[in-house]
Amino acid sequence: MTDIHSTQDAAPRTVISVDAMGGDRGPSAVVAGIARSATKNPEIRFILHGRQGELEKLVSRRRVLGGRCEIRHAEDVVTMDAKPSQVMRHGQGTSMWSAIDSVRNGEATVCVSCGNTGALMLLSMMRLRKLPGVNRPAIACLWPSRNPQGFNVMLDVGADVRADEHDLLQYALMGTSYARNGLGLECPRVGLLNVGTEENKGRAELKAAHDLIAGCAGDARFDFVGFVEGGDIPADKADVIVTDGFTGNVALKTGEGTARLISDFLREAFKATPLSRIAALLALTSLRRLSKRIDPRRVNGGVFLGLNGTVVKSHGSSDATGVSAAVKLAFQLAQSGFSERLAARVASASCPGQDAPEIKAGGQQEQ
Amino acid sequence: MTDIHSTQDAAPRTVISVDAMGGDRGPSAVVAGIARSATKNPEIRFILHGRQGELEKLVSRRRVLGGRCEIRHAEDVVTMDAKPSQVMRHGQGTSMWSAIDSVRNGEATVCVSCGNTGALMLLSMMRLRKLPGVNRPAIACLWPSRNPQGFNVMLDVGADVRADEHDLLQYALMGTSYARNGLGLECPRVGLLNVGTEENKGRAELKAAHDLIAGCAGDARFDFVGFVEGGDIPADKADVIVTDGFTGNVALKTGEGTARLISDFLREAFKATPLSRIAALLALTSLRRLSKRIDPRRVNGGVFLGLNGTVVKSHGSSDATGVSAAVKLAFQLAQSGFSERLAARVASASCPGQDAPEIKAGGQQEQ
Repeated sequence: MTDIHSTQDAAPRTVISVDAMGGDRGPSAVVAGIARSATKNPEIRFILHGRQGELEKLVSRRRVLGGRCEIRHAEDVVTMDAKPSQVMRHGQGTSMWSAIDSVRNGEATVCVSCGNTGALMLLSMMRLRKLPGVNRPAIACLWPSRNPQGFNVMLDVGADVRADEHDLLQYALMGTSYARNGLGLECPRVGLLNVGTEENKGRAELKAAHDLIAGCAGDARFDFVGFVEGGDIPADKADVIVTDGFTGNVALKTGEGTARLISDFLREAFKATPLSRIAALLALTSLRRLSKRIDPRRVNGGVFLGLNGTVVKSHGSSDATGVSAAVKLAFQLAQSGFSERLAARVASASCPGQDAPEIKAGGQQEQ
Repeated sequence: MTDIHSTQDAAPRTVISVDAMGGDRGPSAVVAGIARSATKNPEIRFILHGRQGELEKLVSRRRVLGGRCEIRHAEDVVTMDAKPSQVMRHGQGTSMWSAIDSVRNGEATVCVSCGNTGALMLLSMMRLRKLPGVNRPAIACLWPSRNPQGFNVMLDVGADVRADEHDLLQYALMGTSYARNGLGLECPRVGLLNVGTEENKGRAELKAAHDLIAGCAGDARFDFVGFVEGGDIPADKADVIVTDGFTGNVALKTGEGTARLISDFLREAFKATPLSRIAALLALTSLRRLSKRIDPRRVNGGVFLGLNGTVVKSHGSSDATGVSAAVKLAFQLAQSGFSERLAARVASASCPGQDAPEIKAGGQQEQ
């Protein structure tokens, strides 16, 4: 077994903890994915969690992982249909638990898993604990958009089905920090998802959240664009879309389902006649260009925000490309010191209303 | 002026009341649309509401409308940005009010308008009143899907931001009636939108609604498929998707926004290089086939359910094709005696829980 902490080179390195089990495609896709990341980025090291014998065989076949991947044995796997109660009682021997604990122990900066989302959130909350001042952690996703950076951040997309105005404010702050550190946006535009853009629209907690978020925009250095609608999620109106986990989850899955439907219809349209099949051949490059732009694997990775440590949830059906994209995101966040900056961000903004006094956080750094 | 009730032919005819004003493209698009419908369908008659001089000029240019279109003068127009309070106080002289009143008076079976959705719902509730037993009326839309019929029904998509378990049950009943009379489905599959398909997922009112709807499925002759997710909205899992107006509105607009984004990306992909422009020319038929399948104008028309009369809301930016699609939908619903069947449906199902005795509605007809 390799001990990645004993490597001799003095280059800066970032350690990512990876749950090798639990995805739909098993550990071979995960190992293929981290091998790809290792090839692209010489600074990454891995701690890989799962069944030792199986993982050693897979890792030994990838030269690029030599000396850069430590294997930690974990006998059990959290299955995709595991119930929360099972996970709470029997989670300890699993690769997921072990992968999260590497972040808890400070051996790794970010944890990546393709496993069961609910279980991953539950174990992350149990082992990493919520940040001081955070009531509900959130899952943030990236959404293909017309923005110059090509993506918007949306949160919460499914950590919790409820959110009151204070939770929504925290989502705005955490989303801002993510957009700054993950997408490099200095002053992100934040929008609050509603059924209309007029100030009198929507539910009561949204009106309250509107005022709370507007009151924090100056100190937290984001640009509050007010209410946005579903159609603005893929648009160029806001960089961070704030909503509760119920609405966010439905919107995310509706968008994915619509994109899949159109792709399938497009494929059928090009198969309809012999001539259209010829056209499809000629249009191949154009169609590839399109599918690359909307490929969900490129933006693979829901990020858990609001915990003492960062966890990236890769899609359950991730292949090597998907796992590699999730690792890339984890690396970016690790490099930027995201966890620390987010924690400082949430701690410094003690939720003033619009009429609250200004916060003067002495020596406050970029968060 | 033509009196459509005095026409001599004995053919069966259906009268649709049309608000000619208030859409983004003005009355000329509306008149072009109803002329198109009149050409396709000899049974339709119209009562057209708006500024008489303007409408007479437009109608006189369309031969097909001769003797089939009565004009009712209304001086005022409800603008797209009108506030609810304005509409309540000053709505009476508007073409929208007048168009709804033709249904109220029994002169027309269904009302069609491209105007302000909120105002249309407000005036419809004021003038037509809610059906006995209905707490919250709903707006139902059709959604392109993988179903054999090509569309799913989703409701509520924006009449009310709240819905408790009893409202959701009524949406299931009203949606069933709409799918039966609008799409010709004898025993529609009904799904309840949630963030997961397991029975322990989601908000409390959804669990309660799950049991209520399951308890009604047998008597109301629909097939309850349980919880569905956002990805199932364009899928072949349910024909009727039940949700509250907040979630439904966000999902509808997210789906539309995603479809627009992909269409634009597709267009850009085909413009990227000279070769891809040639490919686009050859692929033209295929691309037209695709855009016809996902063309929102083909499924144009949100239907207001739960009132004493049926109102079809056409998209604000509808052109002649869009208006004609909305009129076609209105005609189908009028022909099927939809309003009466829906009313009977809601009245007969007095919301039994799963443990309630069976309802024996003597001589209950197809609803």
